[in-house]
Amino acid sequence: MIPGLPQKLSQHGLPQRVTVYEVGARDGLQNEAALVPTEAKAEFIARLADAGLWMIEATGFVHPKWVPQLADADELMPLLGRHGFNDHTRFPVLVPNRRGLVRAAAAGAKDIAVFASATETFAAKNLNSTMEQSMLEIEATLQQALARGMRARGYVSMCFGDPWEGPVALRAVADVVVRLIAAGCVQVSLGDTIGTATPGHVRTLIDALERRGVARDRLAVHFHDTYGQALANTYAALQAGIATVDSSAGGLGGCPYAESATGNLATEDLVWMLDGLGITTGVDLRKLVETSGWMADILGRPAPSRAVQALTRGRTASTTTVNGNG
Amino acid sequence: MIPGLPQKLSQHGLPQRVTVYEVGARDGLQNEAALVPTEAKAEFIARLADAGLWMIEATGFVHPKWVPQLADADELMPLLGRHGFNDHTRFPVLVPNRRGLVRAAAAGAKDIAVFASATETFAAKNLNSTMEQSMLEIEATLQQALARGMRARGYVSMCFGDPWEGPVALRAVADVVVRLIAAGCVQVSLGDTIGTATPGHVRTLIDALERRGVARDRLAVHFHDTYGQALANTYAALQAGIATVDSSAGGLGGCPYAESATGNLATEDLVWMLDGLGITTGVDLRKLVETSGWMADILGRPAPSRAVQALTRGRTASTTTVNGNG
Repeated sequence: MIPGLPQKLSQHGLPQRVTVYEVGARDGLQNEAALVPTEAKAEFIARLADAGLWMIEATGFVHPKWVPQLADADELMPLLGRHGFNDHTRFPVLVPNRRGLVRAAAAGAKDIAVFASATETFAAKNLNSTMEQSMLEIEATLQQALARGMRARGYVSMCFGDPWEGPVALRAVADVVVRLIAAGCVQVSLGDTIGTATPGHVRTLIDALERRGVARDRLAVHFHDTYGQALANTYAALQAGIATVDSSAGGLGGCPYAESATGNLATEDLVWMLDGLGITTGVDLRKLVETSGWMADILGRPAPSRAVQALTRGRTASTTTVNGNG
Repeated sequence: MIPGLPQKLSQHGLPQRVTVYEVGARDGLQNEAALVPTEAKAEFIARLADAGLWMIEATGFVHPKWVPQLADADELMPLLGRHGFNDHTRFPVLVPNRRGLVRAAAAGAKDIAVFASATETFAAKNLNSTMEQSMLEIEATLQQALARGMRARGYVSMCFGDPWEGPVALRAVADVVVRLIAAGCVQVSLGDTIGTATPGHVRTLIDALERRGVARDRLAVHFHDTYGQALANTYAALQAGIATVDSSAGGLGGCPYAESATGNLATEDLVWMLDGLGITTGVDLRKLVETSGWMADILGRPAPSRAVQALTRGRTASTTTVNGNG
């Protein structure tokens, strides 16, 4: 079991297979201070695919003024084709509006992700619009995307709390989720943008969505480790029947000591748990850890992921505990 | 809800009240490189009690050659009496053997904790004995402790995996737990010493113990965040009916980037989850965070706890996410 893999002991009532939706190349790198060279991003994504990840959000066609880390989206996409991925691997890209969609299509994207807010304040501050204006633009974007034969996912931000508004009503989240699905999203990812969610809240929201007619296989979860809750919340979501989980290789974008920390759930920590639960992901944890270590070297700092830390310390994890308890 | 407390949404089938068994002053500090002055330790423990913690493992009467961080145990204990704690607050101390028990009794300890190993290799390397020899010494120690009117808890190390032996049989753990209880321990804490456990394993072990006649109210859990699993495992344990959880204020002893990291579950991350689940702990999270920040200053490095990091950044947690997703 050591080093490398947890003991498998499955648990009744969980999905047998989980799709890890990898966001490190987009959500992770956009929250890192360093600008990673485009060629390195392409290699990063290729290595993630080689580690068995098959839903890899590659970049975002957002305004480079706001997100300079993703300013090379148009150049990055053509590089992905070189790596001979199998047909199964998909590279969704974040698209904020119709202008971004045109760029994404020109760059060869086949899958997009749009993002909506569950609160007015976040819509105003992040999307510079009202929720309704934002949703109208999303619906127009989705309409054009579907017409181009693209597949679309929706993100909903602030599903579990908003730093300005406080608690967010289940109904407010459900309204947005239902509308995104009606507009053509094949999947909606419930985002705990500020990381305040706890497992009971997760379960309650998923149950509320089901009562609104949203099937669990249309949902994904996107947790942040800002308060250390991401994996516990994920476990609650799995118990509620969710089978797609967003995470970031190495915990990219989530260095806990950085001011810019978003605290993305680390893919390795997630895969460790899923492996232990006997849930199939197709991900090779060792290859993934190597890839995150390689990216950490490029960024010049350790990967935030606990599992990456433990698996790259080059020692049995218990050495000091042994001495300590003597 | 921000800053400071999660939204409460409880979950069916969980304990209404959980005892947080605070190990930072012992298990945390013994794994920190720095030697904390005795007076500061006493103030630390007083502040933990003031934050509402009432089971606070204060120190250990282990050999100072092996654990210099706890060499001041004899001096520390008398200082705790000064702070006027209410009768409810208890300060167990780790006691490895009869010699330690004599010291602990002389220093005024009323509660002790003994520790056993679930594997032969760990017993050999950490306790320098066989499991049987170790258990005989523990039983002798417990006998004398009970004769002195003390209360005793047992720790079992390596319950979920051993770095040398690999998987650990449920039966091996159960044998030790049953024997500790028979020898007079009021509670046994299941230790995931190397942090490899996952939630299904946790549930499986607790169920196996029940089949061996161990009631859930006699059990506590002690998880390490070495692979980021501690809080998810805790949630699984709560669902299995466990109502005592060990954790370390600020994540003391668990700095993820340190070679010496044991990855103790941070009390703040735990309390955040328990608060969110609507489970009563009596702990004032804000006071606890202040205390952990104060101790981090003494140690000269940030607290490993994610929640402490988030709550002391002095900003709304979402600032950068907002810009990032623009």
